[in-house]
Amino acid sequence: MQDLQNKLREFAARREWEQFHTPKNLVMALAGEVGELIEIFQWLTPKEAIGIMSDDSRAGHVAEELADVFGYLLRLADELEVDLAQALNHKIEMNELKYPADKARGRSTKYTDL
Amino acid sequence: MQDLQNKLREFAARREWEQFHTPKNLVMALAGEVGELIEIFQWLTPKEAIGIMSDDSRAGHVAEELADVFGYLLRLADELEVDLAQALNHKIEMNELKYPADKARGRSTKYTDL
Amino acid sequence: MQDLQNKLREFAARREWEQFHTPKNLVMALAGEVGELIEIFQWLTPKEAIGIMSDDSRAGHVAEELADVFGYLLRLADELEVDLAQALNHKIEMNELKYPADKARGRSTKYTDL
Amino acid sequence: MQDLQNKLREFAARREWEQFHTPKNLVMALAGEVGELIEIFQWLTPKEAIGIMSDDSRAGHVAEELADVFGYLLRLADELEVDLAQALNHKIEMNELKYPADKARGRSTKYTDL
Repeated sequence: MQDLQNKLREFAARREWEQFHTPKNLVMALAGEVGELIEIFQWLTPKEAIGIMSDDSRAGHVAEELADVFGYLLRLADELEVDLAQALNHKIEMNELKYPADKARGRSTKYTDL
Repeated sequence: MQDLQNKLREFAARREWEQFHTPKNLVMALAGEVGELIEIFQWLTPKEAIGIMSDDSRAGHVAEELADVFGYLLRLADELEVDLAQALNHKIEMNELKYPADKARGRSTKYTDL
Repeated sequence: MQDLQNKLREFAARREWEQFHTPKNLVMALAGEVGELIEIFQWLTPKEAIGIMSDDSRAGHVAEELADVFGYLLRLADELEVDLAQALNHKIEMNELKYPADKARGRSTKYTDL
Repeated sequence: MQDLQNKLREFAARREWEQFHTPKNLVMALAGEVGELIEIFQWLTPKEAIGIMSDDSRAGHVAEELADVFGYLLRLADELEVDLAQALNHKIEMNELKYPADKARGRSTKYTDL
């Protein structure tokens, strides 16, 4: 992940795009890419959505949009100097306490995080 | 990253949440978390946003929302069997061709990806 | 709608919030509210989502989030001096040409707008 | 607004698109359109964003995306049988109590709604 973040930072630097990559702008870009991802899925039935990767042209599109979301998330975390893996490990530990397996089993209400 | 994806998958499985973690639902959850992230930044000036991590309480909130976004992105990629790192490396290679450094320099218009 | 826009503009002005209500910030706030709306629906089955308004507490929450989205959309359009009703009427006319009823019937692919 | 909602409902019905216009799908479509709107603004400086409507080609694009957001919001409210104007009037009344003008003046923290 560090390697990808370095690549993306250098990619932006070589194009003098650091000026655009402010936290506010990167959050917006992240939301924009999630919007493109959502557009792929919006009219599909749940069943069609589950099988989407067996459609070659859609599969490529999905992978590309996921990559875009991931890219901006890495750029944003890089600019904010947040270690994503560490932050997520911490969140998982907190959620283990917040959603005890025996109480949260099969329930989405009030137990909706991850 | 594979390790985190395994953890998240097991976290969901132990709570019988696989039923909720369909592609459509996970895309929605991802968008919901990006919405929470955006809310942290929406009223800040660009300058305040750049300095946000020096405010301890906001820094923790930012890290937590980034973790949530990352978590759902990993869960979604896992369910769709997309290798995020590979997809992003591929995207970066394509963008090297699409946005030659000398032409894209300092321009955001038409050269907006990553 | 004009009346609502006036109310919202005055509401913001009395609190000296115009400084926050820049186009970028309002677009972000709009996205944040859509995120809150999406969170209500993300784990529901399609059937549960269709019946959501018969659950009183959820119905109130849905109405409130729809109101928030509408409010920021009106504020944004007001700041940008876009007449939403006129813009939408124009878009519907364009879509009548773009998606002829006999060709678009029952198809979501490539005929996804509205 | 009722007139626009009727038009949009009939537009969908004539194309047999009611099957796609479930609450979950419409919420996703709304988020997708907000993503397109955000993409217009993401790399602009705050100043460029304020002046965007004096750029003719961008102005048309902004109006079109605002119309798309408005259209899906109206469709969603129609399917859920929520009166948007009434819901927003109610929300404004609540916010008058929640954010007393003298206390909320000039502050975005904790006083962020509308």
